[in-house]
Amino acid sequence: MATLGLVEYSEASAEVRAVYDDIMTTRQTDWINNFWKALANDPATLRRTWESVKQIMAPGALDPLTKELIYVAVSASNQCPYCIASHTASARKAGMSDAMFAELMAVVGMANETNRLASGYQVEIDERFRGAK
Amino acid sequence: MATLGLVEYSEASAEVRAVYDDIMTTRQTDWINNFWKALANDPATLRRTWESVKQIMAPGALDPLTKELIYVAVSASNQCPYCIASHTASARKAGMSDAMFAELMAVVGMANETNRLASGYQVEIDERFRGAK
Amino acid sequence: MATLGLVEYSEASAEVRAVYDDIMTTRQTDWINNFWKALANDPATLRRTWESVKQIMAPGALDPLTKELIYVAVSASNQCPYCIASHTASARKAGMSDAMFAELMAVVGMANETNRLASGYQVEIDERFRGAK
Amino acid sequence: MATLGLVEYSEASAEVRAVYDDIMTTRQTDWINNFWKALANDPATLRRTWESVKQIMAPGALDPLTKELIYVAVSASNQCPYCIASHTASARKAGMSDAMFAELMAVVGMANETNRLASGYQVEIDERFRGAK
Amino acid sequence: MATLGLVEYSEASAEVRAVYDDIMTTRQTDWINNFWKALANDPATLRRTWESVKQIMAPGALDPLTKELIYVAVSASNQCPYCIASHTASARKAGMSDAMFAELMAVVGMANETNRLASGYQVEIDERFRGAK
Amino acid sequence: MATLGLVEYSEASAEVRAVYDDIMTTRQTDWINNFWKALANDPATLRRTWESVKQIMAPGALDPLTKELIYVAVSASNQCPYCIASHTASARKAGMSDAMFAELMAVVGMANETNRLASGYQVEIDERFRGAK
Repeated sequence: MATLGLVEYSEASAEVRAVYDDIMTTRQTDWINNFWKALANDPATLRRTWESVKQIMAPGALDPLTKELIYVAVSASNQCPYCIASHTASARKAGMSDAMFAELMAVVGMANETNRLASGYQVEIDERFRGAK
Repeated sequence: MATLGLVEYSEASAEVRAVYDDIMTTRQTDWINNFWKALANDPATLRRTWESVKQIMAPGALDPLTKELIYVAVSASNQCPYCIASHTASARKAGMSDAMFAELMAVVGMANETNRLASGYQVEIDERFRGAK
Repeated sequence: MATLGLVEYSEASAEVRAVYDDIMTTRQTDWINNFWKALANDPATLRRTWESVKQIMAPGALDPLTKELIYVAVSASNQCPYCIASHTASARKAGMSDAMFAELMAVVGMANETNRLASGYQVEIDERFRGAK
Repeated sequence: MATLGLVEYSEASAEVRAVYDDIMTTRQTDWINNFWKALANDPATLRRTWESVKQIMAPGALDPLTKELIYVAVSASNQCPYCIASHTASARKAGMSDAMFAELMAVVGMANETNRLASGYQVEIDERFRGAK
Repeated sequence: MATLGLVEYSEASAEVRAVYDDIMTTRQTDWINNFWKALANDPATLRRTWESVKQIMAPGALDPLTKELIYVAVSASNQCPYCIASHTASARKAGMSDAMFAELMAVVGMANETNRLASGYQVEIDERFRGAK
Repeated sequence: MATLGLVEYSEASAEVRAVYDDIMTTRQTDWINNFWKALANDPATLRRTWESVKQIMAPGALDPLTKELIYVAVSASNQCPYCIASHTASARKAGMSDAMFAELMAVVGMANETNRLASGYQVEIDERFRGAK
């Protein structure tokens, strides 16, 4: 159970409903997932988080699918079950194939391995990488 | 200083040199970065890690740039300075623009934020996400 | 199921019961939560952990509510479901309101975001912060 | 060196300067720390991040000192050197004494310890904590 | 449910069956745990991961029990429920007693505590440790 | 620089000196590393942490070398530079060979990889592992 309960549309304030409506319109869907219903206990955080997500995940220099893949990569590294489940679904919707998912996981696994090898071996950053832009 | 020192090409065994040569050929570069020189203290790990990285980062369902972006995303989430520096350089080489880097960081930051909101609010996984394939 | 089973009061040794009694007295409660019942498989760790928690969480320069908020913040960052659940309950008991919880989560989320932005952008520590005391 | 260099006030665009000015006014200080100068390479992220931080760290149900303590707690758990340095300085400015800092660290250390004990022992969440609000 | 479903032996390709057979032979067991059945959706990752695990966990300078203890230590630090459960079982099979498990957890908890104390206090690495080999 | 400065023996209180003396006697060494000098700003935490470390790292069901290997494993997973450096030195002193270090790192790297594969693939815990004791 979410710590503060879930705010359903039918019981939501006008302020919360406005965010829910924008989520459904932007995502072209007819339902709100639990994450937003939990945040709705704090309308300021609900609005700020949604506005940020909406801005960040919009098409730009990176396409929406790439952004969702990155989101899943971070969520898997952080071991966040909710985020892995919800963003895997989002990535699917954005076009992630089984093969893409498999390669994504392979890269995430490998990066987590070499991150610790680099730290454990106390490898110093190469001079050539120091100014890498 | 790396925990076991760095193995330079000139002092490397034939086994290690073979891996160094393959790294330089595959990456079309003429130098070996410190990560591999540290791993070379353990030739079995050097070879296995390089073979895995080579296989995983090759073009497939995901292109090399996308894979490097994912690598940077994981490294930034894990706060691994060496890996952030080296894979930011690799991503640059694979075509990452300033705008792409900025969007990558924005997604990584946001994912790390919402991962903790989902956990902290103890949000249950939606039924619709449970079987997400 | 806890890895080693849970040690109930009725089956506990005198040494374990002494710790259980002190927990209930200190916390002014009549039950022992699963965490301690699991640790009781190792009486030395049970005693040391409880003595440390008791000392650390006592009123001092920081009040008990602030300490519980910090505990929840760490647990949410680490994505530890048990600890989030138990310390959210403790914080409630210590006086955390819904509004405080919402602000706590907002700060935790933001800190997790900016931690990765700082790392990912490889930001150097400002000279003025180096000697910050 | 920050990945994309630091944007100094003298070379900043009007958009970036407006954020810098607001930071200095809000914080009653006359300088900008490196974090913001790095983010300024991406004005949209600079603005969004600052607006979020400003909103979240303002006095509310929790006072500014408590919020800074929470920020340090998260940063120490995540092992983010930049964030520990900068937010320790902010917490000092907000009134954190040596004794408060010491207690903060003790709680952070303890929480990180018990988080792993709870996970490692595979402790199930107590029924009484499940609906904790 | 695993993201891509579980590949049972009866429905597996010859390539996957060959890995399953090797797992059962090497581990002297007659079943395959879910981790491998999930990876089997990506035969290349299944094979590479198994070959790596087989090589790394074989007796060497460290005995198999010590390696399993290390595996559990990492999994508990990372708060990975699946890995804690599966490698605790493996460690049991390799000879881990209740007392060993309890001491393992005590060390893991302590290390997680002092890691954050070292970071939070911004402790500089001693000169004597810098060249530690 | 450590956040609160380092407390040298010559300037330490009798309470702090007693802990320093016990550290040097127990470890059969003639110096105190920076970690303890930083904690000495908070004598209560210094004493509690040292007493806990002394108790936990003493020979028991696990020998001191195994315990140091576990400490390094956790520190490398957490990416704590100070702890990696100091406990690699401690492990060396306890008898860790180059070959042991290399195998330790290989296991740590692999565990970090498979932890994320298990999470990312959302693998359910096998029934046989649920009651693993």
